[in-house]
Amino acid sequence: MEGSKTDVLIIGAGPVGLFAVFELGLLDMTCHLVDILDRPGGQCAELYPEKPIYDIPGWPVITAQGLVDQLMQQIAPFKPVFSFGRMVTSLERIEHEGFRVGLDDGQTVNARVVVIAAGGGSFQPKRPPIPGIEAFEGKSVLYSIKRMEALRGHDLVIVGGGDSALDWTLNLQPVARRVTLVHRRPEFRAAPDSVNRMRALWESGDIDFRIGQVTKLDGEDGQLSTVTIREADGETRVACTRLLPFFGLTMKLGPVADWGLSLHEDRIPVDTEKFQTSTSGIFAIGDINTYPGKLKLILSGFHEAALMAQAAKRIVSPGERIVFQYTTSSTSLHKKLGVPD
Amino acid sequence: MEGSKTDVLIIGAGPVGLFAVFELGLLDMTCHLVDILDRPGGQCAELYPEKPIYDIPGWPVITAQGLVDQLMQQIAPFKPVFSFGRMVTSLERIEHEGFRVGLDDGQTVNARVVVIAAGGGSFQPKRPPIPGIEAFEGKSVLYSIKRMEALRGHDLVIVGGGDSALDWTLNLQPVARRVTLVHRRPEFRAAPDSVNRMRALWESGDIDFRIGQVTKLDGEDGQLSTVTIREADGETRVACTRLLPFFGLTMKLGPVADWGLSLHEDRIPVDTEKFQTSTSGIFAIGDINTYPGKLKLILSGFHEAALMAQAAKRIVSPGERIVFQYTTSSTSLHKKLGVPD
Repeated sequence: MEGSKTDVLIIGAGPVGLFAVFELGLLDMTCHLVDILDRPGGQCAELYPEKPIYDIPGWPVITAQGLVDQLMQQIAPFKPVFSFGRMVTSLERIEHEGFRVGLDDGQTVNARVVVIAAGGGSFQPKRPPIPGIEAFEGKSVLYSIKRMEALRGHDLVIVGGGDSALDWTLNLQPVARRVTLVHRRPEFRAAPDSVNRMRALWESGDIDFRIGQVTKLDGEDGQLSTVTIREADGETRVACTRLLPFFGLTMKLGPVADWGLSLHEDRIPVDTEKFQTSTSGIFAIGDINTYPGKLKLILSGFHEAALMAQAAKRIVSPGERIVFQYTTSSTSLHKKLGVPD
Repeated sequence: MEGSKTDVLIIGAGPVGLFAVFELGLLDMTCHLVDILDRPGGQCAELYPEKPIYDIPGWPVITAQGLVDQLMQQIAPFKPVFSFGRMVTSLERIEHEGFRVGLDDGQTVNARVVVIAAGGGSFQPKRPPIPGIEAFEGKSVLYSIKRMEALRGHDLVIVGGGDSALDWTLNLQPVARRVTLVHRRPEFRAAPDSVNRMRALWESGDIDFRIGQVTKLDGEDGQLSTVTIREADGETRVACTRLLPFFGLTMKLGPVADWGLSLHEDRIPVDTEKFQTSTSGIFAIGDINTYPGKLKLILSGFHEAALMAQAAKRIVSPGERIVFQYTTSSTSLHKKLGVPD
């Protein structure tokens, strides 16, 4: 695939990555954002889109999705390029030119500067604590379902008590040979309507529901045949050709960990003048970085983006004088923002 | 006057001082704000209330006054105490108790922590470049007018081309023996209606208007008798017992400069972990501070306020464990903010 070019490649399109486009744009730098999720907003939009946030300065209350919408509007004048549903898989330095960044679809992007704004890292499904589960992952243990048809006729064991576990139980019941839902408690963290519908299927005998935990997997060459469920009154073996654990998402640093940056407890140490990592030209802003006094606040990421942009400008346009201007009074900034005269 | 008590005294009620109330309030600290202006908002509300700002994250555009209104609403749950139209004139450390702060109305406030959020400093009138003017200031050279009656029967020379100069020309004409308005150009930066009314008074001979500059003051013991005005065609001496220059406002650090803090070019150096000054217990946030990478952005002041609050809490409640909580998910923060269950 043909490579593209940008001044700044931003990993992560959460609120902080988005606002970085604004600060970089004011200084005439172009941005390309890459995010594993399929839309802007990062953790905010993914985990709690409708939850109100109270500590964004100037917003007594705003939902996470509302904030993301505002930021998308604020950066629109700078026309950022987005690669959603994509992951940065490689990063290599090119002498005098910056970095060549590879995405998981084979695309490459040449960037003068790389900004890591990846929040806590990439979202990854939580792995249940079952011995030997790794050997079955991707074959008969699935953390996400791309096509329901692939599960037709299977003996499914679905594990979890949230909306994902309940929704897939309801959706896959007509498709599977048999669905067994396993949750360690009788209470669910899911929409009451879904819980009622699941209970109705259980009472009519169309699914099985067991209060307990999956403790053992049996099978060969990654193909499950049975699983052992430990309940209050003992253990049961259940036929199972596909295991679907829905234990929520966790954050993993992912490939960032392999780029030779100094790391401290899965976070990236930066200075507080430029928010630059141990590698010149690679910056880290937002929840993924660490420095003395660091708080994981969105508003801190905004500040970090502003200071980072000044330093990035010196790399992208070496020797050019940076004139610090205010958006309130500068007609040249007004022009960039599309403000009418 | 009886002294009052507060956890934190904040000097300056601009956007950054206001938002500090929010961050301190989340950590259960009470705040008392002092500002030389007669309302909240600082420089923003005073100099450009109606001008749009474009770089507040999450606000594609907001007026300065609009931002101040939002912040006032955001901090309302914490019921801060305000002393408007007041200046901090003294600050003394009391062993084990923090600071005793004196205001210019004789009020004293005892505070565990002092936060300087004074923007560029206090507003002060600009002094015109006339040799020896200092000797007349406060006696016959006045930068503000408390009582019009005090000017009855005087020969007034009013200097300037903005609204203040024009308004006082119109208001004082009936009171004074004679008003001479001096401005270096025939054009004014004032309301057209005021300019028209001034011109009418000039044409009817009720005031005098001269295009030029005051270059010399004559008088004894601070009492003016005449001033010299240089015009395009030469110099004129004009009778003058009170000179009123309206050259706008400038920012001065004011009494802050006398509190023994380290200063660097009229700004207060701070660390980037706590935003503390060279004096333990005194913090400086917003435009008045300086550190490597510092940008005079409102959003940076917001970040500084958040980190400062953590450090202030350790002084106000020593030994108490600080639990970092998010406003999105913490029910105890919801209670403080008055969010219904």
